[in-house]
Amino acid sequence: MQHLTEDEDHVLRTLRVLIADLCQQFNGGHPGGAMGMAAVGVALWKYVMQYAPHTADFFNRDRFVLSNGHTCLFQYIFLHLTGYKPMTLDQLKSYHSDRADSLCPGHPEIEIEGVEVTTGPLGQGVANAVGLAIATKNLAATYNRPGYDVVSNHTWCMVGDACLQEGVALEAISFAGHLRLNNLTIIYDNNQVTCDGSVDLTNTEDINAKMRACAWDVIDIGEGCYDIRGIVAALKQARASIRKPTFVNVRTVIGVGTAVAGDAVAHGVALGANNVAELKKAYGFNPDEHFVISPTIRKFFEDIPARGEALVNNWSNLLDRYSQDFPDLAEEFQRRVKGELPADWDTLVPTKFPSKPTASRAASGLVFNPVAQKIRTFMVGTADLSPSVNMAYPGKTDFQHPDLRTICGIDGNYAGRYIHYGIREHAMCAISNGIAAFAPNTFIPVTSSFFMFYLYAAPAVRMGALQQLQVIHAATHDSIGMGEDGPTHQPIELAALYRAMPNLLYIRPGDSEETAGAWIAAIEAKKTPSIISTSRHALPQLAKTKREGVLRGAYVLEEYQGSEGADVTIIGVGAELSFALGVSKELKESKNICARVVSFPCQRLFEEQPVSYRRETLRRHKDIPAVVIEPYAPNGWERYADAAICMTRFGHSLPGKSAYKYFGFETSKMTEKISRYLSDIKEDEILRGEFVQL
Amino acid sequence: MQHLTEDEDHVLRTLRVLIADLCQQFNGGHPGGAMGMAAVGVALWKYVMQYAPHTADFFNRDRFVLSNGHTCLFQYIFLHLTGYKPMTLDQLKSYHSDRADSLCPGHPEIEIEGVEVTTGPLGQGVANAVGLAIATKNLAATYNRPGYDVVSNHTWCMVGDACLQEGVALEAISFAGHLRLNNLTIIYDNNQVTCDGSVDLTNTEDINAKMRACAWDVIDIGEGCYDIRGIVAALKQARASIRKPTFVNVRTVIGVGTAVAGDAVAHGVALGANNVAELKKAYGFNPDEHFVISPTIRKFFEDIPARGEALVNNWSNLLDRYSQDFPDLAEEFQRRVKGELPADWDTLVPTKFPSKPTASRAASGLVFNPVAQKIRTFMVGTADLSPSVNMAYPGKTDFQHPDLRTICGIDGNYAGRYIHYGIREHAMCAISNGIAAFAPNTFIPVTSSFFMFYLYAAPAVRMGALQQLQVIHAATHDSIGMGEDGPTHQPIELAALYRAMPNLLYIRPGDSEETAGAWIAAIEAKKTPSIISTSRHALPQLAKTKREGVLRGAYVLEEYQGSEGADVTIIGVGAELSFALGVSKELKESKNICARVVSFPCQRLFEEQPVSYRRETLRRHKDIPAVVIEPYAPNGWERYADAAICMTRFGHSLPGKSAYKYFGFETSKMTEKISRYLSDIKEDEILRGEFVQL
Repeated sequence: MQHLTEDEDHVLRTLRVLIADLCQQFNGGHPGGAMGMAAVGVALWKYVMQYAPHTADFFNRDRFVLSNGHTCLFQYIFLHLTGYKPMTLDQLKSYHSDRADSLCPGHPEIEIEGVEVTTGPLGQGVANAVGLAIATKNLAATYNRPGYDVVSNHTWCMVGDACLQEGVALEAISFAGHLRLNNLTIIYDNNQVTCDGSVDLTNTEDINAKMRACAWDVIDIGEGCYDIRGIVAALKQARASIRKPTFVNVRTVIGVGTAVAGDAVAHGVALGANNVAELKKAYGFNPDEHFVISPTIRKFFEDIPARGEALVNNWSNLLDRYSQDFPDLAEEFQRRVKGELPADWDTLVPTKFPSKPTASRAASGLVFNPVAQKIRTFMVGTADLSPSVNMAYPGKTDFQHPDLRTICGIDGNYAGRYIHYGIREHAMCAISNGIAAFAPNTFIPVTSSFFMFYLYAAPAVRMGALQQLQVIHAATHDSIGMGEDGPTHQPIELAALYRAMPNLLYIRPGDSEETAGAWIAAIEAKKTPSIISTSRHALPQLAKTKREGVLRGAYVLEEYQGSEGADVTIIGVGAELSFALGVSKELKESKNICARVVSFPCQRLFEEQPVSYRRETLRRHKDIPAVVIEPYAPNGWERYADAAICMTRFGHSLPGKSAYKYFGFETSKMTEKISRYLSDIKEDEILRGEFVQL
Repeated sequence: MQHLTEDEDHVLRTLRVLIADLCQQFNGGHPGGAMGMAAVGVALWKYVMQYAPHTADFFNRDRFVLSNGHTCLFQYIFLHLTGYKPMTLDQLKSYHSDRADSLCPGHPEIEIEGVEVTTGPLGQGVANAVGLAIATKNLAATYNRPGYDVVSNHTWCMVGDACLQEGVALEAISFAGHLRLNNLTIIYDNNQVTCDGSVDLTNTEDINAKMRACAWDVIDIGEGCYDIRGIVAALKQARASIRKPTFVNVRTVIGVGTAVAGDAVAHGVALGANNVAELKKAYGFNPDEHFVISPTIRKFFEDIPARGEALVNNWSNLLDRYSQDFPDLAEEFQRRVKGELPADWDTLVPTKFPSKPTASRAASGLVFNPVAQKIRTFMVGTADLSPSVNMAYPGKTDFQHPDLRTICGIDGNYAGRYIHYGIREHAMCAISNGIAAFAPNTFIPVTSSFFMFYLYAAPAVRMGALQQLQVIHAATHDSIGMGEDGPTHQPIELAALYRAMPNLLYIRPGDSEETAGAWIAAIEAKKTPSIISTSRHALPQLAKTKREGVLRGAYVLEEYQGSEGADVTIIGVGAELSFALGVSKELKESKNICARVVSFPCQRLFEEQPVSYRRETLRRHKDIPAVVIEPYAPNGWERYADAAICMTRFGHSLPGKSAYKYFGFETSKMTEKISRYLSDIKEDEILRGEFVQL
């Protein structure tokens, strides 16, 4: 261990005492990890990271991700000390308080200046950091020119023992090694303690060997509670890495300095008033004073804001020169910095489609491929389903390290915008959140896989919705119509999750025209992720579908034009929309029942419409019963329909058409069911008031 | 490569031709992987695995898991050839047909004799296999006595390139190495091809080094398409492993022998009639003949059933001697083989609880700890939240390799029934599926974590529901009442998923008495997994709650006893049940509104009740409007309620009580909302017919 200055020693003591105080005041929070990591924090915020507290959104700043988000006090305190203005001492003291306007929530949140991504669910941050590093690589490869490194930042990711056990992180680590992301560093707060006790209870692997096997460089820090010099040297070496991402394995002691140092009890509860007092005495603080930040500490960090502003100014000057020397490139770059698409992006969306039946997954390609091809904002990826999801566009370049061509014959470079994520659905979506979080709407990442596998990715999709990150998920094979792969691949209940998830658009288009509407809705949703949910099998092109209808969530596809009122509204959805039309026709022809048909691709968009529109679309207030047809669990449709032809069991391995038939999704059977239902409710008033599964 | 007999060569050719034929007939399926793995199959089913085709459920059989389930033809064909009676040639030909009774679905399904677990979603099988190996270890450590190895089977798990990229598998691999499960072997069909092309597109890690870092032994097979001798030797070495699980890395060629050998196109579509014909010619088959299985092949496998029956008889004899020499142990063992609990298990459930307010997570412990302590059927685990979930019972022994005591001071042994899974929620649940799949109800695995993190585990929970495996998930911290951890930890939309998921009980008990009901329901659900969803914070003990009510899903907690009809039904749920009672009281006192209160812990159990019970519980047919109070997304409640006080946005980091207040879950506010709603619908008939969020 090398020399620690007197000021640094004072800083470390202050940080630890402050953390202890902040947890003790409301008797809660996570003190131990944050205390153990203090020296890492000094290394990062004082000596290594390039950032600008007074211009928190400086585009070329280093990104810091606290994947072990429960140690958030660690980050909040450094944000305060280094001069992020909103993070006042008063705010620090709001940690675990009942202040709804607190900037110190229990886990870091993206809305806070200086916080790059919301973390908490473990492992997510690692994948987010990989996404941030990908964003840098792609921007640099696209826009930098010799002497003009307009994007050159590094991404730092702090992890605890837990993050390295989570599958999403392990997927992302393997992928980052593959991509040779030398602009990414993981700093491992290796305190060997989790909630249950010693990490040895659950994990005795050789993590360094594992990281090396994943093509990471590894640097060991034997004593990480005090060895600021050693950590700084390691981090600088990491930033200078030429070929690989770096894993800095820092041995720390949870709750260092206290009576519970090294113990699991230091993890997730306040240390106790006595322990805090003892810590203060041992560190030369007055036990009766709280939240003490001495002038020495203030002085230690006082250069940071100015240093940051210098970075901002240099970059701004660089950008001026860049704009003069590469005006076209600079114009595009500036547009992306502002998070804008070319004004005419929507002209790239086809206005007409071939009349032949087309799978909506194919229609997705027809709609979106031209957009992705032309506009570099879009980073398109797939979890190893390129042949199935139709997201690969003509002339695409893969996002790969260029050396892979020599190493194993794989083509691509960092300016490529097509990402082969491998069979890593969860990491794909969490990485995409990271790409999207680089700067608002500078990228619009697109992921793709079978809809069912968005259950693997659901925690990441949720984090995108929570963070208002625009990520578009192209989910194919979205119903029992996907066929032979069987019940493991046939989603039944998954739509219920995504329809209930706040700030997410789950859209099931019914034909090519509606698929255009779905993509337009998703691209226009600047603060909302979307799932565009499409069919494996060919769908007929329907005469009256319209993209504008999709934007409203639901719309009348066939109004009943008779002299008297309609008998029933049939709600059709996505891959099964045409069933609704078929049933409507058959009801008229064989039963003289007059039906109207509503196409209902997106519940959330519909909820956003005025009540008058909603009522006129469904007309339930005219006492017209509504029946929804969708081979999903009906949960949630009860709001819009009186009865459902749906699925309440898992699917079956059969060819798509046979699967529909097997579960009763045949025109004649559905017609019978609806006809019987309509006569039943005529006779049974109670049934009329209940939701019925037909 | 060592000698391949003429018969073996013929077998390999036959298998490959047969696979090609079976995919070609309906022009679909996954031929390539299955063809490449043929030699592995011969090694396993002919030379290594101990099993009994005519007694498919032989308790001590080796377990085989096909984690790369899309190569299912591989397994189906060996089941046919080795004599599993239901798997006729006619059945083989039903692969990808429209026969609903096919035993050859697109992925292996647990209902088929000879298939241990349903696979398909990649990586799950690896974790299932770890669970199967844990089951063996635990049974062996519990019941074996010197000279009486009543449980001694090995678990074999076949994986492809994809499984080794999935997070759930990586979690399970790390954990299996930690546990030193020497009775587990992963066989890696290393063909280096996935849907998108070369694995090098997405993964260039050193897998052998990674497995070694995770404490696995590694054996390389350089040529795995033909080297049966080498594979057999490796598998036998794996079975004999003393200290570690074994990873057998077998280099194969996808679609070997065909024109598309080694190409991604061999993965997921039929090879094409020409390719199949060419393969047959090259292999000395008549291109015009299909599904040819020569007498030589029949003879090659004909000894298998008798060999299996000998195993069954030997084990049966062993069990007879065991029953004589260890009658008590044998009685318990036999009971568990039959999948039965002690008849009086329910007497272990407390009938009374302390009257003080108690968190339902604590009540969960009060209810279930005595049961878990006494009955060895229960394997209780946690994803590193022992201090929070209250599943650790007095005198528990951890499930650990006993050597860990020497290696790192960790206590435990394989007879232990408390599993520290680490921060691996997804693997925890997938491993639990494997434990449950060892034999029907021989084990009832229990998992535990915060409810929110069951989103990480959702794909595994789903696989448990699909396979009718009884696994109980103790999910705590289940609403915004969990407080400061904030929106990343506060579930809003997750219940919508689990309420929609077929064959799953999602139960939210409202106090300790209801928690007893929840556990009884879960323990009685022999073919259904359950999530028992409990609060972090203390809940009052309510006077009229009853466990029998929970078993019916919902029940009247407070009937209105007035002379005229009630004005409204308030539906209370779980942690917020007491809110319903408070609001009811306040409605009467401040508004003279007469409310009845229904406790509604489980929608699925309620759906199973007769219609008369459901109507009398809710009384909506008496035109009494129902309002549900639950700080979740309302999706699905529309079936039972006319209005909801609910959440349609993400939560907020605040202490639990403040969080409730922040979102309007205060008695006075809720009372106002309901009162206003009741007068609104009196004046507005249309509104009365619509679902309203208050």
